Amino acid sequence: MVEIDEAVIRASKLHLPGLACEFSNPKLELIVGDGIDFVAKAKVESYDVIIVDGSDPVGPAQGLFSAQFYRDCQKALKSDGLLITQGESPMFHQSTFVELNRCLKSIFGSQKVHTILFHATTYPSGMWSLQMATKASLNPKADFNWKNADTFCQRNNLKYYNADLHTAALSLPTFVRALLAE
Amino acid sequence: MVEIDEAVIRASKLHLPGLACEFSNPKLELIVGDGIDFVAKAKVESYDVIIVDGSDPVGPAQGLFSAQFYRDCQKALKSDGLLITQGESPMFHQSTFVELNRCLKSIFGSQKVHTILFHATTYPSGMWSLQMATKASLNPKADFNWKNADTFCQRNNLKYYNADLHTAALSLPTFVRALLAE
Repeated sequence: MVEIDEAVIRASKLHLPGLACEFSNPKLELIVGDGIDFVAKAKVESYDVIIVDGSDPVGPAQGLFSAQFYRDCQKALKSDGLLITQGESPMFHQSTFVELNRCLKSIFGSQKVHTILFHATTYPSGMWSLQMATKASLNPKADFNWKNADTFCQRNNLKYYNADLHTAALSLPTFVRALLAE
Repeated sequence: MVEIDEAVIRASKLHLPGLACEFSNPKLELIVGDGIDFVAKAKVESYDVIIVDGSDPVGPAQGLFSAQFYRDCQKALKSDGLLITQGESPMFHQSTFVELNRCLKSIFGSQKVHTILFHATTYPSGMWSLQMATKASLNPKADFNWKNADTFCQRNNLKYYNADLHTAALSLPTFVRALLAE
């Protein structure tokens, strides 16, 4: 995990202990630093998954929405690697939503980028997106391992995500489809 | 259509002309009156579909969340009829959401009530529900006519709903499943 702002880690430990307990997970390597730099210097084809949860594309997080950053991510991923990044709201941040999707398609290929929608009930509009980009070809509905996912969700006592919802989240409202086809 | 407040019709014509043009649809019979009374006096087994879009369950709309109202709806529906009603937010109106679901299950039977979630981006939390109750047995995913639905959506230029989304909307987050199983 690469977090640019050490105060975010401190505040999480103070206010979100249920999540922040994972900072002491022995599997975690926590780096306080710039994720954009980190990925630019990362070893080629060394990561299975890259998860990007940037804040909105203004100020310090702007680079997390740039083509250079995603080119570096693509290089850092193994040949069967996968990137997932928060893609703002298709309702209230349409231009960022569309541009990020286009940017990823230009880097990974148009068949290898998939849009996921979910209910983020404390975010503007409550309708939020993730963009998933895969290095190899993947059909995110047909190639999904339902049984493994259900076992994982139950074992980890997840409150939102489940195997049924995985497929549902890839089904997009007509106006969102239209935005992505532009 | 039965609307209790004539001012709602006037305001719709003034502010929502794109929707309100349907008030002059020759297929519409518009009644300004109490929907609760209307259904109580309706002819038995005479309706194919009843759509209830009550406001929140306080004040005049309270009766639209009562068991007596839904018993009257059930009677007014044909043997293959279907009721659909707005069910508030499972996030911020959990008790109403759960109670309405239980109420419908007690009237229609527990296998004949289905919960639908959608993004209502201007409503609190953006996560809103519909409850669907059918008089006959129906599997809302397996018995769905995809081809007809896609044709209908395209012909009517719908912006949100499509056949793919129909199935997706019946897939519920784990915490919503848990609420409905209580």
